[in-house]
Amino acid sequence: MRIDVIISAADVKLEKIKGKVVVIIDTLRATSVMVTSLMNGCEKIIPVREVEEAKSIAEAFRGSCLLGGERGGLKISGFDLSNSPFDYKREVVEGKTIVMTTTNGTQAINNCIEGDTILVGCFLNGQALAEKLLEMEQDVVIVNAGTNGEFSKDDFITAGYIISSLVYKSSVDVELSDIAITAMDIYRDHPDIISYVEDAYHYQKLKSLGYEEDIKYCFTKDITSIVPEIRDGYVK
Amino acid sequence: MRIDVIISAADVKLEKIKGKVVVIIDTLRATSVMVTSLMNGCEKIIPVREVEEAKSIAEAFRGSCLLGGERGGLKISGFDLSNSPFDYKREVVEGKTIVMTTTNGTQAINNCIEGDTILVGCFLNGQALAEKLLEMEQDVVIVNAGTNGEFSKDDFITAGYIISSLVYKSSVDVELSDIAITAMDIYRDHPDIISYVEDAYHYQKLKSLGYEEDIKYCFTKDITSIVPEIRDGYVK
Repeated sequence: MRIDVIISAADVKLEKIKGKVVVIIDTLRATSVMVTSLMNGCEKIIPVREVEEAKSIAEAFRGSCLLGGERGGLKISGFDLSNSPFDYKREVVEGKTIVMTTTNGTQAINNCIEGDTILVGCFLNGQALAEKLLEMEQDVVIVNAGTNGEFSKDDFITAGYIISSLVYKSSVDVELSDIAITAMDIYRDHPDIISYVEDAYHYQKLKSLGYEEDIKYCFTKDITSIVPEIRDGYVK
Repeated sequence: MRIDVIISAADVKLEKIKGKVVVIIDTLRATSVMVTSLMNGCEKIIPVREVEEAKSIAEAFRGSCLLGGERGGLKISGFDLSNSPFDYKREVVEGKTIVMTTTNGTQAINNCIEGDTILVGCFLNGQALAEKLLEMEQDVVIVNAGTNGEFSKDDFITAGYIISSLVYKSSVDVELSDIAITAMDIYRDHPDIISYVEDAYHYQKLKSLGYEEDIKYCFTKDITSIVPEIRDGYVK
């Protein structure tokens, strides 16, 4: 099996994902929110690109779903939930369908629908994800959502954590592309993850909006074994 | 001034290079060859995409120029010079025009012709390049040629060397994108460059072809202060 990494949603190319297992990562915060939400009993998430599209889908559900996400890091006007994982508590999301739109994560997902299997990853489920990928024994492309179409350090070190876990657990040879090796190097060279990401653009942005607790939470390793899969437009 | 990095020739996008100083890096080996060649008195290099195009241009020069480059790492049939810097000695190239085509480097150059100023970099001229960029005080995009449209560790650590030199020499604030910081981190975390690149795909390929001396040479720092510029289709 071969592991590759794509550095941002804007760099996804069909030939790189076709026939592969695709792992979407948006550590700060969309995929961390999705994993948290499913961990807290949410039934499914519908990831969409546009705010208006999200509102139309919610209308079709006649109010039986929740609207979540962000623009500019902040809750969208008329939405039920922001893009903070702390909004997605069990008492709020259990049994619910959530329609979600974010600047980077839901765009990355929608750019990757041609992948063979599409999984959702972050630090919160890193080990479980690595184990699942090893069981699947297919070529993998880890797609970092990035930030506004750019490489983002927070997603890259998350890719490194998943690759490092996978290589560590594997009894067979795993072939890593040059960029997959580099992500793993970055993770292994920087055991203090928060101090590694604190000069990153996206970290600074979230910090300036007062989301330090979100950041700390999103870099917590392995609080769940849930590995969401995206199929027929749903994250489940 | 802001510094960004593009990870391969295939990832060049017009909006990222327009109005910027673009630095092309193909450490193994096209830009190392170009710098060596100009250091040894070559008059100019014409970088082209295709073998047939190179041959046509050479014909138009009625044999007064040299043909150089590679496909699959090897000398092209009918060409005067391979893509080994050791082919470009003073007694061979002095005063000459060289028409050159390579798998990655000359493609990267031709993908970047919309850049404001286009410079050629490698380890051989890293410090001189960093100084020139500081003098220019414009936004910079370092374009790694990569290997077959993929990220390549050898080009990435070269970008890291140039960025690290620039930040070290600068008396003003230099804004680095997340990927520029990461390239610098990789360079600073791996002082033994050869051992860093030895698991890289491109290194392995060149080693298997017997080019270990080329690799060693291409990772030599600062043997010249020449910083070639590409203008009107010529590298000079």
